[in-house]
Amino acid sequence: MTVPRSTVNSLIAAIHDVGQDSVRGGYSRPVYSSAEITLREWFIAEAESRSLQVTTDANGIIWAWWDTPGSLRDAASRRGALVTGSHLDSVPGGGAFDGPLGVASALSAFDVLAAREASGALVRNRALALSVFPEEEGSRFGVACLGSRLLTGAIDTSRALNLRDANGNTFADVAAANGLDPARMGRDDAALAQIGDFIELHVEQGRGLNTEEYTDAAGRGPAVAIGSSILGHGRWRLSFSGQGNHAGTTLMIDRADPMIAAAQLVLKVRELATATPDARATVGRIEPVPGGTNVIASRVDLWLDARHPDDATTALLVQKIHGQAQRIAAFEGCTVKLTEESLSGTVSFDASLTRTLSQSIHRLIPTAPLLPTGAGHDAGVLAAHVPSGMIYVRNPSGISHSPEEYVEDDDVDAGVLALADALEDLL
Amino acid sequence: MTVPRSTVNSLIAAIHDVGQDSVRGGYSRPVYSSAEITLREWFIAEAESRSLQVTTDANGIIWAWWDTPGSLRDAASRRGALVTGSHLDSVPGGGAFDGPLGVASALSAFDVLAAREASGALVRNRALALSVFPEEEGSRFGVACLGSRLLTGAIDTSRALNLRDANGNTFADVAAANGLDPARMGRDDAALAQIGDFIELHVEQGRGLNTEEYTDAAGRGPAVAIGSSILGHGRWRLSFSGQGNHAGTTLMIDRADPMIAAAQLVLKVRELATATPDARATVGRIEPVPGGTNVIASRVDLWLDARHPDDATTALLVQKIHGQAQRIAAFEGCTVKLTEESLSGTVSFDASLTRTLSQSIHRLIPTAPLLPTGAGHDAGVLAAHVPSGMIYVRNPSGISHSPEEYVEDDDVDAGVLALADALEDLL
Repeated sequence: MTVPRSTVNSLIAAIHDVGQDSVRGGYSRPVYSSAEITLREWFIAEAESRSLQVTTDANGIIWAWWDTPGSLRDAASRRGALVTGSHLDSVPGGGAFDGPLGVASALSAFDVLAAREASGALVRNRALALSVFPEEEGSRFGVACLGSRLLTGAIDTSRALNLRDANGNTFADVAAANGLDPARMGRDDAALAQIGDFIELHVEQGRGLNTEEYTDAAGRGPAVAIGSSILGHGRWRLSFSGQGNHAGTTLMIDRADPMIAAAQLVLKVRELATATPDARATVGRIEPVPGGTNVIASRVDLWLDARHPDDATTALLVQKIHGQAQRIAAFEGCTVKLTEESLSGTVSFDASLTRTLSQSIHRLIPTAPLLPTGAGHDAGVLAAHVPSGMIYVRNPSGISHSPEEYVEDDDVDAGVLALADALEDLL
Repeated sequence: MTVPRSTVNSLIAAIHDVGQDSVRGGYSRPVYSSAEITLREWFIAEAESRSLQVTTDANGIIWAWWDTPGSLRDAASRRGALVTGSHLDSVPGGGAFDGPLGVASALSAFDVLAAREASGALVRNRALALSVFPEEEGSRFGVACLGSRLLTGAIDTSRALNLRDANGNTFADVAAANGLDPARMGRDDAALAQIGDFIELHVEQGRGLNTEEYTDAAGRGPAVAIGSSILGHGRWRLSFSGQGNHAGTTLMIDRADPMIAAAQLVLKVRELATATPDARATVGRIEPVPGGTNVIASRVDLWLDARHPDDATTALLVQKIHGQAQRIAAFEGCTVKLTEESLSGTVSFDASLTRTLSQSIHRLIPTAPLLPTGAGHDAGVLAAHVPSGMIYVRNPSGISHSPEEYVEDDDVDAGVLALADALEDLL
């Protein structure tokens, strides 16, 4: 299969310098940082250059409309708009594609569709919109998919507004500083009702397309997959409290050091997750307070990311981890507090939409498989309210959330064409 | 013993609001932060209001001279100036007294001496200066006592200039932004030669004055102690590198997670230190990179603080820890790199100066003991070059490097008088 070059490369190249992290490598583009704001402005400019009508809603989600809903007056328009998009924020030190690939591919697919319409090959019966969701990664305020959760009411609004970043700023204050009105944030039924179907294209975040099952004789997997389900996942904060003190003057036996308790728990997390088939559990973030080299910490916060296809098993795993945390803390003269920061059950994407996506994409890439993923996405949050589906672009190394994340040009271009074809079939 | 109220309380009260840390509690006053700069300006204003001549030297050390060296022309002036002072920077979330107590007590002791001179009770034969050393805690650039190490040449200047803070700024750039000339920084023999004796007053950082050996019938220890020695101490950074990846898509068995290796090492550090009599070893700072909740870290940096009265034992302990780190890293598919950030041998303070301090202080507080400490101080760095001594003010709880650090007013006032008397005897 050869496909024409898309505009994705030049779109991604245009934001190459935004939010580079000289310390961690890769990109750090937390929501409403100057980097992420620059990316939002870049998206708005790109959309407006395509004569799309851009609005930012009460929850900070950007919508770029080819036609506003209802402007296409035939019966089909009552299906609601077809929406495609992704996010622009990143994890700290993340890759170039997680989020921006979906946004750039949406812009590029629009270019394909506009050209088809200009040539008379496409007749639309339905509004199309591109969307950008804020704080998908949860890397600033701790709750992943915060924008789509607010839109759908999947998070209590007052809880969301009181989330704090590492510097103690509340989400309400940061949102207000970015022109939003905290009093208007939260579930938005009118905005939700405009969405007929939602499709998110995203870089694959594992090696799912590179398994023997799918690779050709040259060992190369298909360019894209169609999403089948998202593994249930959640985030919990465990705060161990002990006695802060001077590292030089406090005898080893006089200590109640929460770092010791936290270290034991990190190892227990792996042990319990490994003993639970299909479970994944990770501690990727740990913050001693105060965090000085010559200071015994008074508190250590660590974040647990746990996932399993069966929601009850996830709950049981976290319960076991909490039990071990309490046992460890008591033994070390510390205390521990567990806080659930987010929890999403396993999501199966809309069967009918997924079938349509598969049919469209199989014309172009007959071997494109259905693929489950362990990664959370806004499409997974929206799936509880509107038919949603996903397209994954092959990730040769499977590495993501890392500066080493990459995709190959041919796969990117095939992804754009797959998205455009699927959108055309749904328009 | 009753002593008159000193001016320390009002001096400390004047800086009560500077650098409060709303997240950690206590104070965060890293060197050349706006908080620490405010404190430097406060000190300069206080010194100038006492008609002291203030200069900031090439290494950022502030000197406030009652008389410049040589201005007292008798034979005694050739002994060099008598200098007393401490630091104003803090650990993250530190207490109100670690550093500022010594600076405020120096100002307050000056007030006592100036009053004595005005009444004719004091005749000076020697210059006196107050000093403030930058980056005593090493909480911004990682090397404790950076100011006194630069002054004495105890750190290689180019290494110091290339130290980086958590945001990647070099010490050279930060110093330059604060009006210093990096090209002029480093060992300063002229400044060193001006110091005849150095005395640092500091809040005690353990429970050394509250042990049964020293407490009276009411269970109260003496207000002050005279420093005898500083435990050898050092800081090492251990960087574990593994494979950064997505927390949801990477199977447990496919991981090379440096957080797991780091957690094992934290526990080994305690085990090895506990097994070494009189050793203290602490991990109070740990930084996963990138540090996202949904990201398997690609690297985890942790800082080891290790101390022992016998320098060879410290070296052996760190060697054992390094060996264990390598074993653990290899087993986890990771690598580890050990970097020594600072190392100071055990310091015994000048015997003659300590005897003089004891004699002066015993007139006021006959029970003031000689006390070793596990905490590092600028006086410990200066001790290799000029006779240096310390006075510790009683710490009722022994807690330091914590918002809970406190001292009692009576002890503070006794400390000022003890310092003033000792200075008078040496002037």
